[in-house]
Amino acid sequence: MIKVSILGATGYTGQELARMLCQHPQVEIVGLGTQNYVEQSFAHVYPNFRGVLELPCKGIYDPELITKADVIFLALPHGFSAPLVEKIIEQGKRVIDLGADFRLKSPEIYAEWYKTVGPTKEQLAKAVYGLPEINREKIKTATVIANPGCYPTTIILGLAPLLKQKIIDKNFIIIDSKSGVSGAGRSLNLTSLFCEVNEDFKAYGLPRHRHTPEIEQELGTVAGEEIQVTFTPHLLPMSRGMLSTIYAVLKEPLGFAEIEQLYKEFYKDEPFIRIQPRGEFPHTKWVLGTNYCDIGINVDERTGRITIISVIDNLVKGASGQALQNMNIMYGLDETLGLTRVALYP
Amino acid sequence: MIKVSILGATGYTGQELARMLCQHPQVEIVGLGTQNYVEQSFAHVYPNFRGVLELPCKGIYDPELITKADVIFLALPHGFSAPLVEKIIEQGKRVIDLGADFRLKSPEIYAEWYKTVGPTKEQLAKAVYGLPEINREKIKTATVIANPGCYPTTIILGLAPLLKQKIIDKNFIIIDSKSGVSGAGRSLNLTSLFCEVNEDFKAYGLPRHRHTPEIEQELGTVAGEEIQVTFTPHLLPMSRGMLSTIYAVLKEPLGFAEIEQLYKEFYKDEPFIRIQPRGEFPHTKWVLGTNYCDIGINVDERTGRITIISVIDNLVKGASGQALQNMNIMYGLDETLGLTRVALYP
Amino acid sequence: MIKVSILGATGYTGQELARMLCQHPQVEIVGLGTQNYVEQSFAHVYPNFRGVLELPCKGIYDPELITKADVIFLALPHGFSAPLVEKIIEQGKRVIDLGADFRLKSPEIYAEWYKTVGPTKEQLAKAVYGLPEINREKIKTATVIANPGCYPTTIILGLAPLLKQKIIDKNFIIIDSKSGVSGAGRSLNLTSLFCEVNEDFKAYGLPRHRHTPEIEQELGTVAGEEIQVTFTPHLLPMSRGMLSTIYAVLKEPLGFAEIEQLYKEFYKDEPFIRIQPRGEFPHTKWVLGTNYCDIGINVDERTGRITIISVIDNLVKGASGQALQNMNIMYGLDETLGLTRVALYP
Amino acid sequence: MIKVSILGATGYTGQELARMLCQHPQVEIVGLGTQNYVEQSFAHVYPNFRGVLELPCKGIYDPELITKADVIFLALPHGFSAPLVEKIIEQGKRVIDLGADFRLKSPEIYAEWYKTVGPTKEQLAKAVYGLPEINREKIKTATVIANPGCYPTTIILGLAPLLKQKIIDKNFIIIDSKSGVSGAGRSLNLTSLFCEVNEDFKAYGLPRHRHTPEIEQELGTVAGEEIQVTFTPHLLPMSRGMLSTIYAVLKEPLGFAEIEQLYKEFYKDEPFIRIQPRGEFPHTKWVLGTNYCDIGINVDERTGRITIISVIDNLVKGASGQALQNMNIMYGLDETLGLTRVALYP
Repeated sequence: MIKVSILGATGYTGQELARMLCQHPQVEIVGLGTQNYVEQSFAHVYPNFRGVLELPCKGIYDPELITKADVIFLALPHGFSAPLVEKIIEQGKRVIDLGADFRLKSPEIYAEWYKTVGPTKEQLAKAVYGLPEINREKIKTATVIANPGCYPTTIILGLAPLLKQKIIDKNFIIIDSKSGVSGAGRSLNLTSLFCEVNEDFKAYGLPRHRHTPEIEQELGTVAGEEIQVTFTPHLLPMSRGMLSTIYAVLKEPLGFAEIEQLYKEFYKDEPFIRIQPRGEFPHTKWVLGTNYCDIGINVDERTGRITIISVIDNLVKGASGQALQNMNIMYGLDETLGLTRVALYP
Repeated sequence: MIKVSILGATGYTGQELARMLCQHPQVEIVGLGTQNYVEQSFAHVYPNFRGVLELPCKGIYDPELITKADVIFLALPHGFSAPLVEKIIEQGKRVIDLGADFRLKSPEIYAEWYKTVGPTKEQLAKAVYGLPEINREKIKTATVIANPGCYPTTIILGLAPLLKQKIIDKNFIIIDSKSGVSGAGRSLNLTSLFCEVNEDFKAYGLPRHRHTPEIEQELGTVAGEEIQVTFTPHLLPMSRGMLSTIYAVLKEPLGFAEIEQLYKEFYKDEPFIRIQPRGEFPHTKWVLGTNYCDIGINVDERTGRITIISVIDNLVKGASGQALQNMNIMYGLDETLGLTRVALYP
Repeated sequence: MIKVSILGATGYTGQELARMLCQHPQVEIVGLGTQNYVEQSFAHVYPNFRGVLELPCKGIYDPELITKADVIFLALPHGFSAPLVEKIIEQGKRVIDLGADFRLKSPEIYAEWYKTVGPTKEQLAKAVYGLPEINREKIKTATVIANPGCYPTTIILGLAPLLKQKIIDKNFIIIDSKSGVSGAGRSLNLTSLFCEVNEDFKAYGLPRHRHTPEIEQELGTVAGEEIQVTFTPHLLPMSRGMLSTIYAVLKEPLGFAEIEQLYKEFYKDEPFIRIQPRGEFPHTKWVLGTNYCDIGINVDERTGRITIISVIDNLVKGASGQALQNMNIMYGLDETLGLTRVALYP
Repeated sequence: MIKVSILGATGYTGQELARMLCQHPQVEIVGLGTQNYVEQSFAHVYPNFRGVLELPCKGIYDPELITKADVIFLALPHGFSAPLVEKIIEQGKRVIDLGADFRLKSPEIYAEWYKTVGPTKEQLAKAVYGLPEINREKIKTATVIANPGCYPTTIILGLAPLLKQKIIDKNFIIIDSKSGVSGAGRSLNLTSLFCEVNEDFKAYGLPRHRHTPEIEQELGTVAGEEIQVTFTPHLLPMSRGMLSTIYAVLKEPLGFAEIEQLYKEFYKDEPFIRIQPRGEFPHTKWVLGTNYCDIGINVDERTGRITIISVIDNLVKGASGQALQNMNIMYGLDETLGLTRVALYP
């Protein structure tokens, strides 16, 4: 059994990770760290776990959370990870960070966007960007995983085949993304109140959202050249689910069949990527609670433009599910272990 | 492997049953019957199953659905089951009927409430009312299971310990129930349109809802005497979840501790009943997608009244999950196989 | 023009009152008091008012809010009203308090339920309970109006005709109420977060909700004898709307027609009470944004019980609309002025 | 008083129009035409109108609906309008068609997109496209108004100032729109069921939605040259509200201040257009139930791109409110009569 601790277990991503770990046949949860519920039973904080996970929560700096575990998941606000990661790797353990701290390769860009000091260049050098469909080989041997953000996951997976083949104009990429409210976490903000969100829809994070540099960095790596995008996130009046509508310009006239072939080839052995048939476009509900990224393709031969629609569950493939997929890869297990097979519907 | 067919697979309860069977280690789905999607792939009707269950649907009367299977689940509108059940048991197969046809022991009462002819007295005699917490022994050897309705499940599980001990006044039971919309199924009714239900709340089924005779029959069996209740169902603006608030009068003054003890004792070995601690009352979301029935108890010593709050997921413990629990019992398996352990949250 | 100030204008009830005052032909809003948005334009806090109400907010203790106004509305948390009311009446102004402080006639009961000291017996003596259908005459000349709570409004209006006629057993009244989330106001509570409320349903406030003494006090006044009820509030996953399902026992066998006649007579000149025809039961959406209380009646001759279903918009007839109706009465105006005629649908 | 009939009164746009006409001081509703509720009281079909509008519905071809009225509103499915409009203008009455039939100037394009024969070139020539902010003068004297579609309204109002000034690249306009469910009307479609829409989000109408030719025709008219856009509509899990996120490329580097000035100038006397301050972007809820179109502007000097966010209530400015605004213009009345001033919130 792999011994696992979660630091930041009582946030939405933390408890979602706990849900999946509870259904993983080769994992034992040995520690749960929290900032606000120390000494409380996890099932008291989240009664949906009653009878399944009654472990008492510890403070996030309790050393046992690290010493007792083989792998530690961090689901903490940005700014917390660097010192904890140091402690963890010193003890020869592995760490999967669901936060933003280790995603950007440049400490300067991190500081600019997060208005605080993050990990050093040296620390960042140890981290692998944990998007299995792109970095699986590096993940296998990684000690520190920087688990991707939810928006970047939909966008990179949606664009990678086109950028790799250099068949779209890198200077013209427009990304219109929509997210459920759980992406904002469980903290107390006026903008997260039921009555503020319910029956409402808005854009937010303009002029530029924090995920922009992560998106541009990773798209650039895939493309092998610098990429600049226009990215507008929106807030959906629902709890879970994320959809990105991505607009690009084809350099040469290509039809749906060729593009579909390209995607099928690129993702041919991927257990969690589902390319939709011609004329079908994914709903966020098709992936609810699962680790799938469903992708739909529309080629408009009239305008020479392509529209990609990419959906995930922001808490699963966009956070905890991808983290678990990374753990499975790191331990040489079947990548699908512990991950829900079929979305709950309706 | 147990070979299973679902007749009525493309309704909400049918596809929910399929979801759970897909995660059951000892089941193979061999047939899917439908009225509206014959010859279509199941994953085309429900794309959340893409890559998992691509079986083409057959018509509900296709003989292979029975011949190839060991056990057949019926998830059909009332009035369809009687003839199908005949065919199934003739062939020595077992059947679990999620519909209403075999629940009422009297053909006359059935005809009165459903305005059509149902099974005969003889046919009804073969059926066991499939509420495991009450009828587990009979279920083990049953050939025909009448799977309980969703409202009756919350109500019988909520009241059984009190009625068994005869500590409440059988002449004064008020049941105020609230259900999510999925209970109405996937058929096209004006009252099921998003814009009609969303941001709305109403009572329905007054003066008397079809589940009333089922509730009174089964409560009467538990109590060993005739029971008459006042039952008012309401429609919640949400997809899944059911909560019943049950009001009764204590014959003698009892405190919370004694009542709690009574419930804990009554349900002591039950894997799917969770009695809440004093002062805590269950939310429907705590059981979302799971087979739990969570029960909260409030004793008002001021008035000598007791309030029981009982919640389930109407599509799981209220339908498909209970059906699967019954199958597990019929085959001597661990009752929890194939059933989701932890509710998806948030 | 009547000059009006709102103290607590930036809460949900405050801004709802502002909305209606903006459409009132004989009112001028001269002051808006707030705790958190001092000096900000009201339209900045609530952009739905942009171009209509751009007045800057003042602190709630700014004397101008009182001196400039003829009537002052208080929409503040409990505990704030007593001293303000003193100041207001000293200056010969009239006040309508939407809070709880002046509703209970006994300072002791207030202290017991609100865990703080409220108005004195003398101060309370000056206040009229502002339920027009019951106290219209007193309201006309009142200086201080204690505007009723939302739950009590649905319940008193639903039961008054039966209690007045003494045709139900006063010892057996069960009230099962359901409210939208806006009733909890705009304050930051974990239980008001979108992800906590959305797709969930629960009972709350057990064992006894704060509105219980107000309900029992006013029902007792109508009945002319002491009344004790069982009252259970629930939280609906929607923003607005409240429905109470009220169960009582008829002392003598009466049919629907007689009961309907009784209600029609009792409410014959009321502009905001709509008795539904036999077999129809009101939806919360039928009254959205309006000051109506719609009432449905079900007489179960089988059990000799009566079920009353009473719905309002908790922010309108349950708060701000009723407050405005009271103001119209106090100034001898048409009671319907400024109040929306038709609910927004869907 | 202006005498008004509504043909198609029992659809969502029809009843929404009725709601606003009931609060219009100079209108009398003399006729209501319906396909499915003939002879029923309007308040029986929509109980939110009980006590306000109890008129019995007639069949849509009842001649009295035209003879008794001065102006007739058509809120019918496409294909119904042409013959009715003929009858209406023959009798010297005026007509406002909320349907699509008279919007496209070319019968061929209409036939291509709606797969049926529409009005003739001659009939179309009589119709004015009823977008007041663009065509007010023509509307004043029009006999036949083609009321704009909801998507085109958000898009044309969002882009008009930029196209008029020719400061954006007409070859690169991307429009990502999101609509509430009420836009689909009240008809029985699987895709409109609560359980299908709730907690889900998807793109639809791909590869090309019916509103595309209307959008391109009217943008072309404003620009004075042919315009081709990429337009992707999406379905929001909410009843009302529409938001379009519009992406364009600035031909020359302009800052926010200049663009804002341009919009303020272009819309300076418009009662229903609200340009948001720098850094603020409209929510759909800010206009709920009102006739406003709120517009937010983001200029990204890094990329030389501009993003316009335009929101309306799809049933008001996107349909019935705009129709009423047109009527007010046709009769020389204050344009705001009968239209709700402040959005219901929350």
